[in-house]
Amino acid sequence: MDFKKYIASIPDFPQPGVLFRDITPLMRDGEAFHQATAEIQKFAEQVGAEVIAGPESRGFIFGCPVAANLHIGFVPVRKPGKLPRETISYRYDLEYGSNELHMHKDAVTPGQKVLIVDDLLATGGTVQATIKMIEELGGVVVGCAFLIELEGLKGREALDGYEVFTLMSYE
Amino acid sequence: MDFKKYIASIPDFPQPGVLFRDITPLMRDGEAFHQATAEIQKFAEQVGAEVIAGPESRGFIFGCPVAANLHIGFVPVRKPGKLPRETISYRYDLEYGSNELHMHKDAVTPGQKVLIVDDLLATGGTVQATIKMIEELGGVVVGCAFLIELEGLKGREALDGYEVFTLMSYE
Repeated sequence: MDFKKYIASIPDFPQPGVLFRDITPLMRDGEAFHQATAEIQKFAEQVGAEVIAGPESRGFIFGCPVAANLHIGFVPVRKPGKLPRETISYRYDLEYGSNELHMHKDAVTPGQKVLIVDDLLATGGTVQATIKMIEELGGVVVGCAFLIELEGLKGREALDGYEVFTLMSYE
Repeated sequence: MDFKKYIASIPDFPQPGVLFRDITPLMRDGEAFHQATAEIQKFAEQVGAEVIAGPESRGFIFGCPVAANLHIGFVPVRKPGKLPRETISYRYDLEYGSNELHMHKDAVTPGQKVLIVDDLLATGGTVQATIKMIEELGGVVVGCAFLIELEGLKGREALDGYEVFTLMSYE
């Protein structure tokens, strides 16, 4: 399936100079949405995922269908103040300022095989933070799956040593 | 399935006096997560849903698996500044301050049967705002499905005239 025809490209969003890849037309098309989650599901089976981790909120969109279909758990990676029980957190720098992500401490058990799912691989900062937390909890990251890869931002290099799966890529 | 045994009850979160119902243990259990989405899916089929609408971000968790499985679209209901194309919006009052939700103007087509999915039915403010937007776009709300209903907050009364489905309820 040519997934790219379901992606809208929006100039200057959310700020001037950024070309935003809008996935909502893909989600709105039942066949395209099903097919995209099915492809990620195939990858999840190949790498033997036992649980899916997804950063809020677009990681939920593709990660939850895969987890529910495979009868495996989904653990949310969230911004501060959202998870009610004891968390592990990781702070990382952005171009301006920083970002902090949290997971529940019981989200992953030692040795558990975890697949990370998100919509977009850009610089890889969010997924690197997620990997750090999973590994600190003793989990094994068996792969990272994304709908879209922005090649110019070199996220794949930042994830060197991890298996990366993407459905489509832009320069 | 006794879904309640997968819900953690957290006192004084996110603020003193609130008993927070934490759905993350349910999501983390592969069978419980699958079963919960399967029940909502059955309801979606009964009411003939042609598209699912879900408020960010917990509406994505249960709405996306149902949509992807039924090969129907999912349209996100989001906070201001998140959706890149032309939106319709609705502002509603909270106990302190107000909240504003947006949907893309092309999210729903006239006559389309829409099921709203969210994790929690409390006062019903979020879902009422979502209904307003869907109906303004010409869509037909065929039902509202929630994982949890907090009966004391009378959300079901606020949704009088709409078909409401919940998997479990607390006083």
